Amino acid sequence: MMSTSDDSTTHDAFLGGQLILGQFRHGYRAGVDPVLLAASVEARPGQSVLDLGCGAGAAMLCLGTRIAELDLHGLEVQPAYAALARVNAGRNGIAATIHEGDVGRMPPALRARRFDRVIANPPYFDRRTGTPSPDTPRETAFGEGVALADWIAAGARRLEPRGVMSVIQKSDRLPDLLAAMHGTLGSLRLRPVQPREGRPAVLVVIEGTKGGRSPARMEAPLILHAGARHTADGDDFSAEARALLRAGAAWE
Amino acid sequence: MMSTSDDSTTHDAFLGGQLILGQFRHGYRAGVDPVLLAASVEARPGQSVLDLGCGAGAAMLCLGTRIAELDLHGLEVQPAYAALARVNAGRNGIAATIHEGDVGRMPPALRARRFDRVIANPPYFDRRTGTPSPDTPRETAFGEGVALADWIAAGARRLEPRGVMSVIQKSDRLPDLLAAMHGTLGSLRLRPVQPREGRPAVLVVIEGTKGGRSPARMEAPLILHAGARHTADGDDFSAEARALLRAGAAWE
Repeated sequence: MMSTSDDSTTHDAFLGGQLILGQFRHGYRAGVDPVLLAASVEARPGQSVLDLGCGAGAAMLCLGTRIAELDLHGLEVQPAYAALARVNAGRNGIAATIHEGDVGRMPPALRARRFDRVIANPPYFDRRTGTPSPDTPRETAFGEGVALADWIAAGARRLEPRGVMSVIQKSDRLPDLLAAMHGTLGSLRLRPVQPREGRPAVLVVIEGTKGGRSPARMEAPLILHAGARHTADGDDFSAEARALLRAGAAWE
Repeated sequence: MMSTSDDSTTHDAFLGGQLILGQFRHGYRAGVDPVLLAASVEARPGQSVLDLGCGAGAAMLCLGTRIAELDLHGLEVQPAYAALARVNAGRNGIAATIHEGDVGRMPPALRARRFDRVIANPPYFDRRTGTPSPDTPRETAFGEGVALADWIAAGARRLEPRGVMSVIQKSDRLPDLLAAMHGTLGSLRLRPVQPREGRPAVLVVIEGTKGGRSPARMEAPLILHAGARHTADGDDFSAEARALLRAGAAWE
């Protein structure tokens, strides 16, 4: 992505420049993950969407770029990220309401209502096995102040009946994720993401439907990079990945 | 596979004819599933292996064909299948001990010992959602007299420390399987099996290690059939699938 900067933030182009996001130079910076999460969401114009732990708004604003007239809400515990998400929404002309608060203790305005869609890109860092970062905002973005199971439970509670929650995680958290979703959400659908053909998956997007009773589905993997290894200068995204990441297409 | 028959059983060639299995004409008949399960097992000569619900012995005898000098044991609840498994082992010159008994109430000879490897191809039929078959042996082979979680728990109890349990299931049971393995086995490794490129997975092999603490891995899928659809007469297995199913290769 292209990036320009001032002292503390950079301005980075997503979706081939359709979306420009201010991001803190230090701390959590969006990679492909929120873009893939947003690409996976099959929302319809007019539906309501809650982004749990929205950070600077990458996932929800990617979604708002692709699908018009969503009722977009984000929840973010760190005030500086919440403020940046509001600025990012405004600068990109996307209507969105950013709430400050913790996933485990949502503000009353969110507890009072339900959503058609909940999306989440919970921190990847597993507090049980990793070393905490000395940098507090980083720790909160990467670390696991709220357990993965609590993210799922909190998201499921905010769903309308038949609403869908979508989560992206590193694939090594798949057992934890499925264990957390099991019994809470149904009609589970897994989309593995492989760095290259023949390699193990690195990421997985899982969606579950509140009250869903369809059999679980494991889709064919999305292959991020073409070829067996990195050879050319610049990016070597596969045609499918490029469509999602650069053209802002839906992940069918 | 090639097949010859008498009144009640057929004789079917597996692994390109390296293994000939007697199978009941009516009732459970082995497909690719036990062959793939056996191909996934990285056992070493001299190790002990328990096949839970071994039926006529397809999985354990495929494994015994590829790897020499295994201490092979099978557990089968239906006496007719257990007897057929003994005949199949003998006719193929593979040493194996077949125990009669239920996965939930193992015979003392099995409860008294542990194994390096446990393999299982539990029935795919989900009693909660399906219709029971009027044919009792079929019902036992396809149905779920013992819950999936109990298969996992029973297998895990029979493992040596650092022993590995491998299970093949339809991919729609992945959430149940992972929920059952979560907290019981570690270092989980998933191998999805897709019918063709780009299609959802139909089967998944999951292995877990007793006391394992490595991150979970989701491997690239095995693609069973070449091309986008079935076109030629005969089988159209991919080169990788053909190596496992016809040459008896290991699934690396």
